[in-house]
Amino acid sequence: MTQIDKFTDVDKLAVSTIRLLAVDQVASANSGHPGAPLGMAPAAHVLFTQMRMNPKNPDWINRDRFVLSNGHAVALLYSMLHLSGYNYSIEDLKQFRHLNSKTPGHPEFELEGVEVTTGPLGQGISSAVGLAIAQANLAATYNKPDFVLSDNYTYVFLGDGCLEEGISSEASSLAGHLRLGNLIAIYDDNKITIDGATNVSFEEDVAKRYEAYGWEVLYVENGNEDLNGIYNAIQQAKLSKDKPTLIKMSTTIGFGSLAAGSHAVHGSPLKPDDIKQLRTKFGFDPNTSFTVPQEVYDLYQRKVVTPGQQAEDDWNKLFASYEKKYPDYAACLSRRLRGELPEGWESKLPTYTPADSAIATRKTSEIALDAIHSIPEVLGGSADLTPSNLTRWKEAVDFQPPSTGLGDYSGKYIRFGVREHAMGAIINGISAYGANYKPYAGTFLNFVSYAAGALRLSALSGHPVIWVATHDSIGVGEDGPTHQPIETLAHFRALPNVHVWRPADGNETSAAYKVALSSKTSPSILALSRQNLPQLEGSSIEKASKGGYILNDVSNPDIIFVATGSEVSLAVETSKQLAAKNIKARVVSMPDMLTFDRQPEDYRLSVLPDSVPILSVEVLTTFGWGKYAHQSFGLDRFGASGPAPSVFKKFEFVPEGLASRAEKTIAFYKGKEVISPLRKPF
Amino acid sequence: MTQIDKFTDVDKLAVSTIRLLAVDQVASANSGHPGAPLGMAPAAHVLFTQMRMNPKNPDWINRDRFVLSNGHAVALLYSMLHLSGYNYSIEDLKQFRHLNSKTPGHPEFELEGVEVTTGPLGQGISSAVGLAIAQANLAATYNKPDFVLSDNYTYVFLGDGCLEEGISSEASSLAGHLRLGNLIAIYDDNKITIDGATNVSFEEDVAKRYEAYGWEVLYVENGNEDLNGIYNAIQQAKLSKDKPTLIKMSTTIGFGSLAAGSHAVHGSPLKPDDIKQLRTKFGFDPNTSFTVPQEVYDLYQRKVVTPGQQAEDDWNKLFASYEKKYPDYAACLSRRLRGELPEGWESKLPTYTPADSAIATRKTSEIALDAIHSIPEVLGGSADLTPSNLTRWKEAVDFQPPSTGLGDYSGKYIRFGVREHAMGAIINGISAYGANYKPYAGTFLNFVSYAAGALRLSALSGHPVIWVATHDSIGVGEDGPTHQPIETLAHFRALPNVHVWRPADGNETSAAYKVALSSKTSPSILALSRQNLPQLEGSSIEKASKGGYILNDVSNPDIIFVATGSEVSLAVETSKQLAAKNIKARVVSMPDMLTFDRQPEDYRLSVLPDSVPILSVEVLTTFGWGKYAHQSFGLDRFGASGPAPSVFKKFEFVPEGLASRAEKTIAFYKGKEVISPLRKPF
Repeated sequence: MTQIDKFTDVDKLAVSTIRLLAVDQVASANSGHPGAPLGMAPAAHVLFTQMRMNPKNPDWINRDRFVLSNGHAVALLYSMLHLSGYNYSIEDLKQFRHLNSKTPGHPEFELEGVEVTTGPLGQGISSAVGLAIAQANLAATYNKPDFVLSDNYTYVFLGDGCLEEGISSEASSLAGHLRLGNLIAIYDDNKITIDGATNVSFEEDVAKRYEAYGWEVLYVENGNEDLNGIYNAIQQAKLSKDKPTLIKMSTTIGFGSLAAGSHAVHGSPLKPDDIKQLRTKFGFDPNTSFTVPQEVYDLYQRKVVTPGQQAEDDWNKLFASYEKKYPDYAACLSRRLRGELPEGWESKLPTYTPADSAIATRKTSEIALDAIHSIPEVLGGSADLTPSNLTRWKEAVDFQPPSTGLGDYSGKYIRFGVREHAMGAIINGISAYGANYKPYAGTFLNFVSYAAGALRLSALSGHPVIWVATHDSIGVGEDGPTHQPIETLAHFRALPNVHVWRPADGNETSAAYKVALSSKTSPSILALSRQNLPQLEGSSIEKASKGGYILNDVSNPDIIFVATGSEVSLAVETSKQLAAKNIKARVVSMPDMLTFDRQPEDYRLSVLPDSVPILSVEVLTTFGWGKYAHQSFGLDRFGASGPAPSVFKKFEFVPEGLASRAEKTIAFYKGKEVISPLRKPF
Repeated sequence: MTQIDKFTDVDKLAVSTIRLLAVDQVASANSGHPGAPLGMAPAAHVLFTQMRMNPKNPDWINRDRFVLSNGHAVALLYSMLHLSGYNYSIEDLKQFRHLNSKTPGHPEFELEGVEVTTGPLGQGISSAVGLAIAQANLAATYNKPDFVLSDNYTYVFLGDGCLEEGISSEASSLAGHLRLGNLIAIYDDNKITIDGATNVSFEEDVAKRYEAYGWEVLYVENGNEDLNGIYNAIQQAKLSKDKPTLIKMSTTIGFGSLAAGSHAVHGSPLKPDDIKQLRTKFGFDPNTSFTVPQEVYDLYQRKVVTPGQQAEDDWNKLFASYEKKYPDYAACLSRRLRGELPEGWESKLPTYTPADSAIATRKTSEIALDAIHSIPEVLGGSADLTPSNLTRWKEAVDFQPPSTGLGDYSGKYIRFGVREHAMGAIINGISAYGANYKPYAGTFLNFVSYAAGALRLSALSGHPVIWVATHDSIGVGEDGPTHQPIETLAHFRALPNVHVWRPADGNETSAAYKVALSSKTSPSILALSRQNLPQLEGSSIEKASKGGYILNDVSNPDIIFVATGSEVSLAVETSKQLAAKNIKARVVSMPDMLTFDRQPEDYRLSVLPDSVPILSVEVLTTFGWGKYAHQSFGLDRFGASGPAPSVFKKFEFVPEGLASRAEKTIAFYKGKEVISPLRKPF
């Protein structure tokens, strides 16, 4: 490849400007991380001035994506977004890390120009794999001869911390397998971590590791100054069409600072004297701050803003022709870009009556997926548990590189491998890509915990991803306590903005899919049984879509059971036994607390009213049920290995066990004033 | 190295016996995983017949450790433990996966001969790194010229699943850095996962990856049959003194079965006909089961049981001489082997009075660690956040390979790198090693979630490890919601058997260390503040060691605040403001719910009695507080980026905000019957 000397003194000035803007932000906040921005400013400048994006329309679908996986270097990102013409003013930069500003301490998804939330290390590079998967799928689905609607790249900055996190290993190994040539990561090899030199804990040969994953590895020896070297590496990476690329770039952390090359510049503001000498060194007035020379603005106008607007204009023209030649595809893509699901899609969801046979909810989940898989934006897979999770519909095509003969990029079934954490970050990335992608991920409920870090970012970012989490209790049986979730539902119910569904039957499973797929801003976990469950009298998609409802009512109940999943049929069975003793029990099914919480108060109080003791029934931890129940029957210990029915019996989750607890509860509250737990002083 | 032909027909018979015992167990349970045992039986036989262990004393400190990282292959392990003379009878094997048997569905730590609990993939290999670290530390601490008290190896079996999990990447990279020559892993390269051929998601060059980590990589081409090849590889690995070794062994999953080499044999019992042909093929009567030829028992007696007993006898003699020559070291090690801490160690824990200055609990934690670091079994470190977690005492020596010049294996400060999940598994392994090791791990509270999978096994196994989890709330400030825990305390409180401490001041921090280090069977998380907190009037180590106590009392309170950590001083401050309005508030500090739950009922009811409304105050999720409080003031949403005081104010965690909520709570319960939430019908 021809090596081109593309860069002038204005570019060098731009790099210095970027460096100082980052330093100024950190100084203004008196908090933040100046070291990485000082080292990576040249790469940021070179990268952004060759990226394709329209800062006036940050959502344009065919823009290149940029992910700052080392999210603590966010001052660098805000500098770039400001210069590139996104809606970040110098005043916004001055508000860095101030409360309610547009420039918080780490990149957050809802901010213009931020593709995914980062900061928790390893998440960015892993979500970037999701962005790249989405692009490959969109291209394979909609591109036609002479109509390349999708061809964007995903670029990532990452540091040692991201490489040390296991999630990045998982995601990078999968990216290599998937031959994602549209993914280009620049590794800031600055030899410094918070604890000091990287060699106190990190001596591995990163390049060799990435080659082992099947990546192309390129080198930039002097990332501090060699703009042409960085440019050439990026261009070469773009030519690597069947491999992702890692560019290993050597830099000096805190370049230019008096403390350059030491961990002192990683996470603390530079001292005022240091800033002054830095400004002087870079040819800026030492007594000013937040300075952007006009020729730098002009350069960004010329290299980023104008060509970005032109690129989108061209794309819009292309799409107009595409609409004429491929009206069905165009209509489909347009619908997706509007964020709408196909009209009437919910009507395809299966419904059940009590006459239907008892089947596991992992199976009703499979039936639901099979019914709706034709929605093009629904795609997903399993962490190597496909035959157990039942996440693959009949005749699914795998999302695989065509060269492997195992599938195609237009395929929608993803073989994630045993990589739960990366899977969580990847579906975040797929969702973040846009085009209404609705990704799902399958594993055992117990191992969703491996992905807690990623799911937290789904919730914080509002990615409406779906976890198909089967084997949801001691119903796992023989695999035993290592595989039987106890704390898992409580964990994710305590996480804001997460739907934690535990359907009791087929109708409730369909309701979970209906609400989950309709959601624009909340992730969902579907906790599904391994064992068969009966189809309940009184359940329906409509009722379950309220999150909690009266399944089985009686007049003047003595007690209310509020149950989920496999314990709903237990409560129904028990209520029949109690009726024989003239004890009247209402059965409430509560498949999703978050959805229930979002119903009007009068509805909620009609389900869980005053004056009747409420007993929750769920064969996992009781922790958190105090929100809805006066007393809880659960499992506040680890489970046991054995056939599922014998394990349920051991813990007394049988009608006799529940009935005796109901009677004790009624006796305890007899003559006492009973207030619904929903009633609160504030 | 000379290649020795060590094995005879009896060894081949033993391998067939092992294979069939595993198949019989799975058949008897009608559940389990026959595939991996059939493939790995030769390696298991070769390995066990050269390992040093005394099955009559499974706890002998200098035994070799064996970890079955692919824990689903547990039927293989039970076969080996039976043959090797551990307390597993044929009857026990017949009870495989039956309720209350000694042979549950995955290896569990409390079982004889099981070194760490496995099954959740990646945990075993990572805990093995901890076992190896502990051995290196023990040897460097107690070995003397001519007195090699510790020189055992740690052996691991693992499969593709473990290698795909990021946790194993983290642990393996660190093991390479640490040059743990005492660690030998045998990788069962059988090309099959649950989803089918490994190449649907896993094509990386594993050997190259491990070389990149700094491991020695050896190969066994025919793991199905080549006993000598396996033996020679193990012997060669033992010579690799400054590198861990990965032996890449090719096997056929389900070797001998009609479905050999397919994923059909991974996780389902073999069909009866298949078992019959297998028995015939191996020269066994097809109509019997659980058959062990006497010559196989004899072989194990000769190769395992007798030399194992001899090895411990020799060691005991060596130790007797050591006691004479190095009485102090011997006394120290003896004490540790008895599982006792140094007498009076608690008296070193610092105490505070209200006259002492306000300091962050991460700082009082540092002071506590500094006071007790001379306890030799206390060792630990941080996931690259040492200057933030304050986990390193003055003059600590790093646990590092001496050749790096960065420390020594007798050092007790571990630089884990940014590898939270592996860190969790590694401290499990260190704890499991014995010798009373009390490991701790530092990171931000929010990132303990990355290690949820490992912490779950700490709790299930009862490893009394300690997490030093700083930056415990929105008090993080500018780093923002990506770093501010909300759900984290609820998550781990919902996990059985975990102490979740959130100390309010220095005395409570000392109490947390006292209880945590004294614990024999429960892990602890210490959630510590970034920001300064005052030393409270009324706190003490003794009181806080009850988990919850009355910090500040009044006669006939109108309301009880139950608070933790930084909110205790807020409650105290608020109670003073309320007193001015003639509203009387008791303040209860509840630093650890688990410890409180373990107090007698009358004590608990004296703290949280009937007739007074109880309001919990904690600036994280309210989820779960219903167990102790009628109403909760918390943060059921994500936090915000900004200076900590302004973030607290935004969410009204200031005296005015709490006072107004207290008044509403009192008004709500006025005239109503108030029962303590501790009173329960069952």
